Amino acid sequence: METHIHGGDIYSRSFELDYSVNINPLGIPRTVKEAAEKGVALSEHYPDVQCRTLKRAIERKEGVSREAVICGNGAAELIFAIALGIRPGKALLAAPGFAEYEQALRAAGCSISYYTLKEENGFEAGRDFVDMVTEDLDIVFLCNPNNPTGIAYSRDFLRDVLVKCRECKVVLVVDECFIEFMDSPMEYTMRPFLEEYDNLFLLKAFTKTYAMAGLRLGYGLSSSRALLEAMAAVMQPWNVSIPAQMAGTAALAETGYVESARNLIRSERKYLTDNLRQLGLTVYDGAANFIFFKGPVNLGEACKDAGILLRDCSNYHSLGAGYFRIAVRTRKENELLVKTMQRIMGVS
Amino acid sequence: METHIHGGDIYSRSFELDYSVNINPLGIPRTVKEAAEKGVALSEHYPDVQCRTLKRAIERKEGVSREAVICGNGAAELIFAIALGIRPGKALLAAPGFAEYEQALRAAGCSISYYTLKEENGFEAGRDFVDMVTEDLDIVFLCNPNNPTGIAYSRDFLRDVLVKCRECKVVLVVDECFIEFMDSPMEYTMRPFLEEYDNLFLLKAFTKTYAMAGLRLGYGLSSSRALLEAMAAVMQPWNVSIPAQMAGTAALAETGYVESARNLIRSERKYLTDNLRQLGLTVYDGAANFIFFKGPVNLGEACKDAGILLRDCSNYHSLGAGYFRIAVRTRKENELLVKTMQRIMGVS
Repeated sequence: METHIHGGDIYSRSFELDYSVNINPLGIPRTVKEAAEKGVALSEHYPDVQCRTLKRAIERKEGVSREAVICGNGAAELIFAIALGIRPGKALLAAPGFAEYEQALRAAGCSISYYTLKEENGFEAGRDFVDMVTEDLDIVFLCNPNNPTGIAYSRDFLRDVLVKCRECKVVLVVDECFIEFMDSPMEYTMRPFLEEYDNLFLLKAFTKTYAMAGLRLGYGLSSSRALLEAMAAVMQPWNVSIPAQMAGTAALAETGYVESARNLIRSERKYLTDNLRQLGLTVYDGAANFIFFKGPVNLGEACKDAGILLRDCSNYHSLGAGYFRIAVRTRKENELLVKTMQRIMGVS
Repeated sequence: METHIHGGDIYSRSFELDYSVNINPLGIPRTVKEAAEKGVALSEHYPDVQCRTLKRAIERKEGVSREAVICGNGAAELIFAIALGIRPGKALLAAPGFAEYEQALRAAGCSISYYTLKEENGFEAGRDFVDMVTEDLDIVFLCNPNNPTGIAYSRDFLRDVLVKCRECKVVLVVDECFIEFMDSPMEYTMRPFLEEYDNLFLLKAFTKTYAMAGLRLGYGLSSSRALLEAMAAVMQPWNVSIPAQMAGTAALAETGYVESARNLIRSERKYLTDNLRQLGLTVYDGAANFIFFKGPVNLGEACKDAGILLRDCSNYHSLGAGYFRIAVRTRKENELLVKTMQRIMGVS
């Protein structure tokens, strides 16, 4: 029934290396795995519908009140909840971007305008984005850094968008699911604006940061109680499983893990970028835990035949064939990827 | 933010015995627990968005095509998906009934008519229910056996409702989440009507049958592809976690577990019914893994003080104070419950 339009489809066929999904290359922390296993043992009970322990941990980590937190069965559930909860009439999205914003908005009957991130501008957004925020809009989604391009929006730019959104009574969703992998997330996160701007919704994922995609856990932050209540109204009360709640609580108690991943990603992003450029590929200067590049149209298929899954980006709005996204992984894996691509492209 | 209107709130305060939730008293089968733990270990990957292995197991168990199956993060997610997916204008519910039908329908902007299950009729539905199915309706929900009363609708009655629903172009949702605990589920399930009636949607939960409430897994069956697609459109693709998918697959491979539970429940339902009647309580002849009765209004609070949580049913539509629901559990637990209630009621 469903069509698989995302990365990570390792179920149709097995691959030696999956570069199509953007999760932490260090894998699930041991403490998180153990907590999830303990959660399985307790699963004869229903989950806490209020996610109390988890919300306390998020409150401490984010420095926001637990009243401003909403938890989801993965961040993706919250994208659907915001769309179905507020039923916006008109939305503005940046393209290329994460497909689920569009899917969720369409499911809610929303019409969508696109701001095209142009290749000639290095896929960066300009002031004309702010100009596109008008009173006929209800919601704007931006992912920072953007998926699939990896390009980060500056905080100054996002603040301008946020201010314009408030003037026009528009909700601004900033998806920060990949922000922890940036070299300096604190310079980019919009968290400092949460309290002052109740039209701001920040989306966060445990999925990527703690490599727990299969457990499903994400959360959102907003100072608008009305917004969070509208979202909760379209979700079942028991949406977050016990293993996920316990895994999330353990994850936030980790020290050093995210910093280690950030350091690894910084050096490996450079390693991959340098090597892909040496192959003659056009690599964009992203800030995320993945790399976006342009290459021969058949590269994805050739890598697939060699047992490596890339994210073919040709099905993204405004992108054609020949655009790819790869995760940043460990050196050993990255070496294998580079060697495979060298062989495919006849360079060695 | 959320108000806890259901059973199972063991997070506000701990209880020695939780009689407020209706799950299998035998607990999670060992094989299911092990499968969920394996699922945790694999959770660095995204879940299979198509739940292929799980759907194959459901196909075998139910004898329906996998094309007719939709999986959810608990059956509750599917209740919201059907309401938000088809956005019915007008619904008919039986009262008292499970609160989530109403919650989900209201979230979808649906207006609701109630058929009141009357105490003087032993909370059974009559022919006048069928008469209430008219062309201005879009959807009808019935839970068989009904929650919280435990009263079962006969298959003849449900077929009449189904036929009338089809005549009136109304979707009939039959929630069979508790049906496996009946003495003879095969005489009650509406599964034989699935193929012929594409206005029928059957709801099933692993939660209750396999005591895995904390893992979240349910599924729905319908021969209407359009209905299943409308539901899928309002849900994220990765809604069922890897531990839940693997636990569900393992659960369906269990032999004897459900039968053992059914036998235990049959005898313990009788034990509890007899003992509660001896206490002078009005106990209804339910067919489920829970018992519905009328007692002193303060009974719930008194049991709470004694460390036992009952389901106070006073917040159900059409019920007042003094109605309670208790799960059927093991003899040792049931003895403790009976003794506690004897003490509270001054009988011993």
